[in-house]
Amino acid sequence: MIQSVDRAIRVLGVLQAERHLSLSEIAARLELAPSTVHGIIKTLQAHGLVLQEQGSARYRLGPAVLKLGNVYLDTLELRSRSLTWAGELARSTGHAVRTGVLLPDEVMIVHHEPRPDGSRQMPEVGIVIPAHASALGKAILAYAPDQARALEADGPLRSMTRDTVTDPAEFRAELDRVRADALAVEQEEAVIGECGLAAPIFDSSRTVVGAIGVVIPMLEWPAPDAATGAVREAARAISRELGAPGWPVPPGR
Amino acid sequence: MIQSVDRAIRVLGVLQAERHLSLSEIAARLELAPSTVHGIIKTLQAHGLVLQEQGSARYRLGPAVLKLGNVYLDTLELRSRSLTWAGELARSTGHAVRTGVLLPDEVMIVHHEPRPDGSRQMPEVGIVIPAHASALGKAILAYAPDQARALEADGPLRSMTRDTVTDPAEFRAELDRVRADALAVEQEEAVIGECGLAAPIFDSSRTVVGAIGVVIPMLEWPAPDAATGAVREAARAISRELGAPGWPVPPGR
Repeated sequence: MIQSVDRAIRVLGVLQAERHLSLSEIAARLELAPSTVHGIIKTLQAHGLVLQEQGSARYRLGPAVLKLGNVYLDTLELRSRSLTWAGELARSTGHAVRTGVLLPDEVMIVHHEPRPDGSRQMPEVGIVIPAHASALGKAILAYAPDQARALEADGPLRSMTRDTVTDPAEFRAELDRVRADALAVEQEEAVIGECGLAAPIFDSSRTVVGAIGVVIPMLEWPAPDAATGAVREAARAISRELGAPGWPVPPGR
Repeated sequence: MIQSVDRAIRVLGVLQAERHLSLSEIAARLELAPSTVHGIIKTLQAHGLVLQEQGSARYRLGPAVLKLGNVYLDTLELRSRSLTWAGELARSTGHAVRTGVLLPDEVMIVHHEPRPDGSRQMPEVGIVIPAHASALGKAILAYAPDQARALEADGPLRSMTRDTVTDPAEFRAELDRVRADALAVEQEEAVIGECGLAAPIFDSSRTVVGAIGVVIPMLEWPAPDAATGAVREAARAISRELGAPGWPVPPGR
């Protein structure tokens, strides 16, 4: 670990979390000397990773981070392999489709196929949703025991709605059900009015690398068996394309 | 400039350019000792900015860069202010709409409104297009004389198609026309079969901060006067929302 590089990444992290900050605010958040932060900021700024706002002493993230993010998406085989299947899944179910990967305790959306009814929908690529309160997150965590344990180790999980599973023991039982069905279900656990289904995606190293699922409005819930089958089939097909030896791949096998 | 931070950003830069590289390849590209690159890579990896590929000695960009990129978009007032106008412009013209910002010699797309005919279109947010060969780039450069001079200083501009303007003097004359019309035109200069119109966007500091434009297939070219007017009107409206004192704002005033 190189200390100044670590600090520079933490500077990007506080700007990510708080959006607009002055140099002294950044220094206070990180408990560093303002002169130290100044050198880091100037270096990040020279590469376009950070911008100083016009007519203000505040800094924010710069355009170079978006270019990096776009290249990450381009190089993600999970994403390129899931594009066709996600389109097919949206058409066959009539629902919006999301493909996600796990960050430590969040799922990041790497592909979003809008609901195919032509309605206006915000693009979701790059947004994060809580792992424990989403079908995508549960589908991944059920097959990633180390990450699931790390999540539970911190005690009760964060409550998002009245229906979020927050008790670690109850959450473990929920992940057992996900493995039994090779399918994760979400019923207003993150967002009121929103339900979903998701299934895990594996690669050739037998590792769960993400999940694909549909977002279903509460008014159209429960999902018909055809939707359940289509989600599983999409996950299985993408896993096959990524070289997975079977589907699902039991954890620790 | 802090040397190790600068080097870490250069590591991200070579992974951005070449996608998948081993430690020794990265070290060779940057003319650094492998041990130096190793420390940097481990630090970037601990924060999820870089990943080691499963079962390989190669590295690529990690998911944390996408999250940073998404926050950049969220904090970009140009983007949030242009969403409604971009939707309106797509509906009124029937064409795809792009909003972009200038990187040193490229335009990065920060919003993309698909052509409203329901056809399947790849999302374009985060991609870059050559500034000198695009309507968006010319609309910005016409009002950013320092950046335009920097671009021309390197000699002939890169040829993309038979119609790309590559001669610096000819390009200066083209930017004069953009200023005279407050509108930039692109006719198969970057992509065969693709034309476009764009107009500059200014903020309260009288600075050009981006441009908005439509993408028009060659078969539907030339654009009707209504489209020309609608592009100018969108740019004027977004500039007004950003606090610009007028539109267009002449450079150096």
